[in-house]
Amino acid sequence: MLKLYSMKLSANSYKARLILSLLGHQFQLEEVDLLSGDNRTPAYLALNPAGQVPLLVLSDGRILPESGAILHYLAEGTALLPDERFARAEVLRWMFFEQHSHDPFIGQARFWLHLVRGGRELKQNLLEEWEDRGYEALRVMNSHLAAHAFFAGEAPSVADIALYANTHLADEGGFDLAPFPAVRGWIERFGRQPGFVPIDWAPETAP
Amino acid sequence: MLKLYSMKLSANSYKARLILSLLGHQFQLEEVDLLSGDNRTPAYLALNPAGQVPLLVLSDGRILPESGAILHYLAEGTALLPDERFARAEVLRWMFFEQHSHDPFIGQARFWLHLVRGGRELKQNLLEEWEDRGYEALRVMNSHLAAHAFFAGEAPSVADIALYANTHLADEGGFDLAPFPAVRGWIERFGRQPGFVPIDWAPETAP
Repeated sequence: MLKLYSMKLSANSYKARLILSLLGHQFQLEEVDLLSGDNRTPAYLALNPAGQVPLLVLSDGRILPESGAILHYLAEGTALLPDERFARAEVLRWMFFEQHSHDPFIGQARFWLHLVRGGRELKQNLLEEWEDRGYEALRVMNSHLAAHAFFAGEAPSVADIALYANTHLADEGGFDLAPFPAVRGWIERFGRQPGFVPIDWAPETAP
Repeated sequence: MLKLYSMKLSANSYKARLILSLLGHQFQLEEVDLLSGDNRTPAYLALNPAGQVPLLVLSDGRILPESGAILHYLAEGTALLPDERFARAEVLRWMFFEQHSHDPFIGQARFWLHLVRGGRELKQNLLEEWEDRGYEALRVMNSHLAAHAFFAGEAPSVADIALYANTHLADEGGFDLAPFPAVRGWIERFGRQPGFVPIDWAPETAP
């Protein structure tokens, strides 16, 4: 069975839980609490030297970190990842945008301001950068979504999963989505998929 | 013919120029000087709303931004991207690591400290974050490279191209590679590939 190392409130971990649910996979969940340093133990660093969640363990024991790589791996051969070469590149375009121009600002803001006690004081020097570049990412998304139902093609793909995770919680990082109607419409559309689950969902486990 | 919008001294643009050279593609180069705001003109923003370089234009006019998506697209079907599903996921693992945990610190530091006049003063509030997280990325890379010749498999892939671009110039962002012998060895190995070109290379164009 697949095993996922994940933190319940982490948006990057949510991406992996969400695709596992959308695809109907059974999996075992192992909670890694970043706030208690579970990701800095020698045992965890041996699995993932970058000390991050999520981390997927395949049934044969092979290990895959990085939410984007996990999404791509699991989506292969499903409707969440097109087969055609250029269409795949467009999915990756938005997944790289998310990791480079979105998560480091919108995701970091939510993590430190919403999840970490005293995070605002600890990261005071970064707040302006997060705000400027986070709103810039929302502008880019809104301009794309004004003309497209989803990020790559007319149906949800792993690019939407990647961008949904932190965007629908952007208010927890202090971002106001009111000026971005196309983003708000996409959030609603995305949440209507069969198999959709919210961030605090966990699979039922045998007693 | 392929056309690449690119900035000569940009490490993200270099990734695209380098793979085009490694694969022996002919292409037309269009310089976009971020420092003069060439990327903020309405014409350029119409091509790429994120206002970034590189940007690849295919011979049929289709447009692909994001260095990672360009690398992946061009590498498809070549030795720089494996065919097997898990091997591909491992390549993407390191490409996402680069965009999320490496470029935002090592790449940003080089850009602002080396390329932008007065950048150190403008970005004073970010220097400590860049240093901490940039060295953390180098530690992760060094630990992986201590046991592997390249990032994914035993031959160079697009993961190595992505990580090479900013790493071999890390000193321009104030990073000292002396404590990372495995990284230094990999930089040397990587540069010995047939078709390798340095960052300031441009294709010869007809007179």
